[in-house]
Amino acid sequence: MVQIAFIGLGNMGAPMARNLIRAGHSLKVFDLSQKAMKALEGDGAVAAESAAAAAADADFIISMLPADPQVAGLYLGEEGLISRLENRPVIMDCSTISPQTARLVSEAASEKGFRMIDAPVSGGVIGATEGSLSFMVGGDVDVFRECEGILLAMGKTPFHVGGAGAGQAAKICNNMLAAILMVGTVEAMSLAHKNGIDPKVITGIMLKSSGQNFMLERWNPWPGVDEKTPASNDYEGGFQSSLMLKDLGLALDSARAVDSPTPLASTIRNLFSMHVQLDESVRGKDFSIIREMYSDT
Amino acid sequence: MVQIAFIGLGNMGAPMARNLIRAGHSLKVFDLSQKAMKALEGDGAVAAESAAAAAADADFIISMLPADPQVAGLYLGEEGLISRLENRPVIMDCSTISPQTARLVSEAASEKGFRMIDAPVSGGVIGATEGSLSFMVGGDVDVFRECEGILLAMGKTPFHVGGAGAGQAAKICNNMLAAILMVGTVEAMSLAHKNGIDPKVITGIMLKSSGQNFMLERWNPWPGVDEKTPASNDYEGGFQSSLMLKDLGLALDSARAVDSPTPLASTIRNLFSMHVQLDESVRGKDFSIIREMYSDT
Amino acid sequence: MVQIAFIGLGNMGAPMARNLIRAGHSLKVFDLSQKAMKALEGDGAVAAESAAAAAADADFIISMLPADPQVAGLYLGEEGLISRLENRPVIMDCSTISPQTARLVSEAASEKGFRMIDAPVSGGVIGATEGSLSFMVGGDVDVFRECEGILLAMGKTPFHVGGAGAGQAAKICNNMLAAILMVGTVEAMSLAHKNGIDPKVITGIMLKSSGQNFMLERWNPWPGVDEKTPASNDYEGGFQSSLMLKDLGLALDSARAVDSPTPLASTIRNLFSMHVQLDESVRGKDFSIIREMYSDT
Amino acid sequence: MVQIAFIGLGNMGAPMARNLIRAGHSLKVFDLSQKAMKALEGDGAVAAESAAAAAADADFIISMLPADPQVAGLYLGEEGLISRLENRPVIMDCSTISPQTARLVSEAASEKGFRMIDAPVSGGVIGATEGSLSFMVGGDVDVFRECEGILLAMGKTPFHVGGAGAGQAAKICNNMLAAILMVGTVEAMSLAHKNGIDPKVITGIMLKSSGQNFMLERWNPWPGVDEKTPASNDYEGGFQSSLMLKDLGLALDSARAVDSPTPLASTIRNLFSMHVQLDESVRGKDFSIIREMYSDT
Repeated sequence: MVQIAFIGLGNMGAPMARNLIRAGHSLKVFDLSQKAMKALEGDGAVAAESAAAAAADADFIISMLPADPQVAGLYLGEEGLISRLENRPVIMDCSTISPQTARLVSEAASEKGFRMIDAPVSGGVIGATEGSLSFMVGGDVDVFRECEGILLAMGKTPFHVGGAGAGQAAKICNNMLAAILMVGTVEAMSLAHKNGIDPKVITGIMLKSSGQNFMLERWNPWPGVDEKTPASNDYEGGFQSSLMLKDLGLALDSARAVDSPTPLASTIRNLFSMHVQLDESVRGKDFSIIREMYSDT
Repeated sequence: MVQIAFIGLGNMGAPMARNLIRAGHSLKVFDLSQKAMKALEGDGAVAAESAAAAAADADFIISMLPADPQVAGLYLGEEGLISRLENRPVIMDCSTISPQTARLVSEAASEKGFRMIDAPVSGGVIGATEGSLSFMVGGDVDVFRECEGILLAMGKTPFHVGGAGAGQAAKICNNMLAAILMVGTVEAMSLAHKNGIDPKVITGIMLKSSGQNFMLERWNPWPGVDEKTPASNDYEGGFQSSLMLKDLGLALDSARAVDSPTPLASTIRNLFSMHVQLDESVRGKDFSIIREMYSDT
Repeated sequence: MVQIAFIGLGNMGAPMARNLIRAGHSLKVFDLSQKAMKALEGDGAVAAESAAAAAADADFIISMLPADPQVAGLYLGEEGLISRLENRPVIMDCSTISPQTARLVSEAASEKGFRMIDAPVSGGVIGATEGSLSFMVGGDVDVFRECEGILLAMGKTPFHVGGAGAGQAAKICNNMLAAILMVGTVEAMSLAHKNGIDPKVITGIMLKSSGQNFMLERWNPWPGVDEKTPASNDYEGGFQSSLMLKDLGLALDSARAVDSPTPLASTIRNLFSMHVQLDESVRGKDFSIIREMYSDT
Repeated sequence: MVQIAFIGLGNMGAPMARNLIRAGHSLKVFDLSQKAMKALEGDGAVAAESAAAAAADADFIISMLPADPQVAGLYLGEEGLISRLENRPVIMDCSTISPQTARLVSEAASEKGFRMIDAPVSGGVIGATEGSLSFMVGGDVDVFRECEGILLAMGKTPFHVGGAGAGQAAKICNNMLAAILMVGTVEAMSLAHKNGIDPKVITGIMLKSSGQNFMLERWNPWPGVDEKTPASNDYEGGFQSSLMLKDLGLALDSARAVDSPTPLASTIRNLFSMHVQLDESVRGKDFSIIREMYSDT
């Protein structure tokens, strides 16, 4: 039986941990919230006093934390797991962070003889609960193979993207493109709408033309075109603007680090930033709410 | 047997006219180029002395002209067909022009008792030759029905989009979105590439994720990802940058006319404009060549 | 005594006409508003039945109209002054219109033997009233000389910029740059403010550094920095956002016509367009109100 | 006699150090380059074995280093000066770095009882040599007063901007605005030029209008308008594109950190990034070379 230390039991981490337990793995968990740990104990996990205690006899560590500083804090420095652990569990960081920090942690791990992958997810809380997450994985292909079974307990067939940090890089590239597709779809539909074309009609036409894309098809930003999308439900559910601001921030940081121009993503992040500036409540709404900047319907 | 006047025998018009002849229609054609008319005569068309002569006993006029001024010149003013024709052929303008001009001509036609549709196409020279063009049609739905059979001789089931000008509006909305998809795909793939991810791998991942779109799938802008795309063939074939500059110009004009913001499309048109500024040869290349602005690989 | 036909007695035209009367010129005036004509009669002008009647025995025509269509309508076509007038008064168009239309009218005038200048103004209603307008003049230098005395009755020493349309082109270039200076100043001051720097302090520093510009100095967009600016007076007075939208529209049209990239001006026009979209009342406020898109303080 | 430790003897640091010696101060200097230290010894400085050795008996430390990591490395961590020095010299960091890092170092300094200012400069190598640098200073006003005399030996009356980091923030705000003024001036002049207006004429007009700004006046980007500017000298001298890329990067990072939108600065940084992408030699040229993206004349 595989022993897993699971660090970070938030909206995503908790259901992921539950799916691992269901798949028969033995989990020691840690979170700063006692309440979060209590809930997992009810599902069969063992609550640990600290991340280090959870990991002390683990075969694998899985971390699911909010951002770069928490991941760096967990693994790096004198108090970090990489310095403190005598055993050498395989590290799987499923947090969404910058490729740069992912590489930094991976190098530190590698120096001390740890194997590590970065394995950010997409699919949201629903995917985490249903066990249908997508994983984009960076790191050595052998380590990837070693982790594959465990990832499958939480999601679909994972992609191996490349070396350390490549999982994170792939995720931010995809999310950056997703943001462009959304805002582009809004821009085209607004122009159609103001030219008197029915939003359902232009959607139908563009779905069969060179404008076809994921957002037009499955996340339509115009209220009423598809009753299931956030746009038709007062922008509830979906992917919050605040998360898109975070992900675009990661993309732009990475673009700066590797000298890749981002005229569209920069423009889009500024639009979201201004929208939030003008109306704070936008942060908690699905990112298709950017439509409000284009048209009052 | 239906009598058709076909005006404009360029790269697109000539093969479209040929498909109408093949379908058994009787054509009188006119073009400023004698050579173009000669070629069509070989296929069974009758060459006319003027547009008015071609249309004098027609049931339908089909025009396929380069831009707004030619269409306005053909139909409007004292010398225009709308003033001069005693018969009242149905007008089908297949040119790509602004919705504004399309509405102007339609109003003039309507005042004199002509029926008219705007029916711009997509599918390029190949679609025109194969008879597989897509038509987006604006105008009265009864007139649309009347024209449907003729359009089918040149392409696929046409869309009825809405009133006069709606065909043109739909086309520029779609092409604007297509441009955004292309540049967005380039932007995301460049960031991936500079992060060391293989272009084929990131393409595969994004095709199964929220970045999926027409350009990523069927017009991939990275050389070598898909051997059939212009990017893999020195940017030959495809859709020329100069045509995208024209279509984006129409989109931005329309956006101005109806007060619809276009932060992405404006940014993109400026990128193409600068690219052409720096290297005149870009005009004749497929618009995926914009990749050169992002990455030298 | 010089006989002047003055066409267009709006907020700008009326005070300009008054200054000409004060300078001893004889004016026949025309406006679609009877009320506007009545007011000028009180100041000593003669009201005419039509523009053509006002101009029938004039030495000079001065027009001050809202936009391109009105100017084209006044001068061009069978009913236009250029076709109808037997005398050949010198034409001075002081409206702000596109360089393209200015050239079109100038060419038509020239064909019929009229001399013409385009002479758009800057200085606003205050400048028109005080007789301190700036004129940027396009057209033949000899015609410019002929008009100079009359222009001086309404403003300061006029600039001769170049041939027909050059006055309009210079004006839109300057106004486009003015918009960039304003939004740039807002952008820099917002960044300073959110970094905790006092708006007066950063203004003082940048005025002595490479950020110095007209807007920072004389139209400061931060409330409270300069009690005289619109920003300190609820954005009343100054230059309305709706006028800046118009002028930026002219600039972008011209840029399209001559193939000049405008990444900054396009971005800015889209910001104003979105601001107006979100809050209709912005149209009537000074354009420094764009600060609201950046910061809620 | 005041004892100063001067760390960092590059193109800027070396002439600054010389001016301090000329003003009668006693300097111990340190640089990783032996050659740079040798040169300063010739001017009367004492070369130290390490930064710590230079600072061991200093009243003031002045650092002039390339970027954030060098400054953080000098002062922070177990090996940093703040941990190692027993004496408590006043710290003056004249490097251009992010306000965030400036605040971080300042907090660390303050915890150990050091006084510190951030005092980035503007004026370039010429200003450093002539002793005419401008200083924008962040930190406690009393510490500022204490340092004022020393700053005056290297430049003009320094500005006290605000608390820790405010000097850095002011500098990046000003430089961001300077970049906007430059690109805006290029954009307006390009539009004028393509409308047939002489670059000198439009410069003269805009200098007396609302487009007036530092770059138009003193750094004109059009070759031939002002023989003294980099644009008239093959873009030699001036302020290199690579440095503007760095400064805009700092501005955008800070904007992200404090949630301030930057649609113009983001657009501009992407233009420079693309220009460099297309032609590597642009890095070493004055940033007015961005004109090449607009116009080939």
